[in-house]
Amino acid sequence: MKELAAYRLQKRCDEDGVFVVEGPKMAAEALASGFTIRTVCATSEWKAEGGEWKEYYEVSEAELDRLSNMKTPNQVWMLVERPTNSSFIIHHSSLILALDRIQDPGNMGTMMRTADWYGIRHIVCSKDTVSCYNPKVVQASMGAVFRTKVDYIDLPQWLANCGMPVFGASLQGQPLPTIHYPLPTQKVLLIGNESRGISPEAMAQVTHPVLIPNIGGTAESLNASVAAGILIDRLWKNN
Amino acid sequence: MKELAAYRLQKRCDEDGVFVVEGPKMAAEALASGFTIRTVCATSEWKAEGGEWKEYYEVSEAELDRLSNMKTPNQVWMLVERPTNSSFIIHHSSLILALDRIQDPGNMGTMMRTADWYGIRHIVCSKDTVSCYNPKVVQASMGAVFRTKVDYIDLPQWLANCGMPVFGASLQGQPLPTIHYPLPTQKVLLIGNESRGISPEAMAQVTHPVLIPNIGGTAESLNASVAAGILIDRLWKNN
Repeated sequence: MKELAAYRLQKRCDEDGVFVVEGPKMAAEALASGFTIRTVCATSEWKAEGGEWKEYYEVSEAELDRLSNMKTPNQVWMLVERPTNSSFIIHHSSLILALDRIQDPGNMGTMMRTADWYGIRHIVCSKDTVSCYNPKVVQASMGAVFRTKVDYIDLPQWLANCGMPVFGASLQGQPLPTIHYPLPTQKVLLIGNESRGISPEAMAQVTHPVLIPNIGGTAESLNASVAAGILIDRLWKNN
Repeated sequence: MKELAAYRLQKRCDEDGVFVVEGPKMAAEALASGFTIRTVCATSEWKAEGGEWKEYYEVSEAELDRLSNMKTPNQVWMLVERPTNSSFIIHHSSLILALDRIQDPGNMGTMMRTADWYGIRHIVCSKDTVSCYNPKVVQASMGAVFRTKVDYIDLPQWLANCGMPVFGASLQGQPLPTIHYPLPTQKVLLIGNESRGISPEAMAQVTHPVLIPNIGGTAESLNASVAAGILIDRLWKNN
């Protein structure tokens, strides 16, 4: 048990190529995902409510609490192996999401969840974007972590070579309602850091700067994952 | 100091009709808002970086930590008086946001922030929606708490009597791209609980059920504040 508790540290998970999944809903997604399950620990409540796996450790509430990253641990905790690069088949969708230096795990997970809703299967991130295997990201993704290929790369270089138009949210951008539809079939949407926005190096690769118009509002900005949701919706809509 | 630390409890703030604001950015919004400031506690760093108020207590980092609700307290903590009902002039905007049983403080604050961006000055909530003066809501609102009237009411009854069409997100709704524009000038957008959606009583008052189409995606749902952002954007857009 002590050995497993070490996986509360992100470093231990990174070294070992695994990530932590918690709660019956996310556990069910993990078990159905085809990902390799390393270890499952669950309370008797999990089984009583229909949880099932060929081999798992039954633990007490107190033991679960020692493993968990959550304030209120919820029945089941598991270690899942991270997929290797080749285990994802990229389904080319007409929109690729690119994230530049996103720091907040909640935002990252929420953007993965939104991408999943819109059928976006590929997210590329700057190397300093928060890990998609951070436990808070995994939970906020609501299962999208099992369906989305997330690559950490040299983002400005990737953008320069991707051969697609790059839409980037910028306060100097063109207000969205005036964008001319139809849009290019293949495109990239670039979202920047929560407080600093898109880096100058990545911004240099933006071919279509866009702005969500601030209609009579006084707010300084939108939450990054809300802005991403609105832009994904706008860019999909008139395909 | 001990007396002020009691305001870490929401109950103490409720009894006293105040709320807590933290960090230099939010503090600046509070001081400029016209709201009545009850108490300001700040470290010497706040003043050194330009923070200013006619009367405040200088506190140490350790003292600030005892007052703060944040993991990493940030220079300044203050108590602000909640506005009385009459201190807000309602600017009628063409869209009113109605929230049914929103529980997550981050979602609530983020929806207030999005409303603020789009110039929505009035939010009505079911009585069991999280308080807009919850410290996490205040922080996530990024200042919208100073610009938005939030009323806690009998929501189904209010919806029944508001005399406006009510758009509500529902999995049985009409996919948004097929909504017929132009939309009614005055309207309400109703957003439901994060996991249970809109209550049957409130749903009975929805005149326009709408659905954000899940285009090729496999996600079960969108985050509530992302869905609210997309719907606000869609409903504003073709005014």
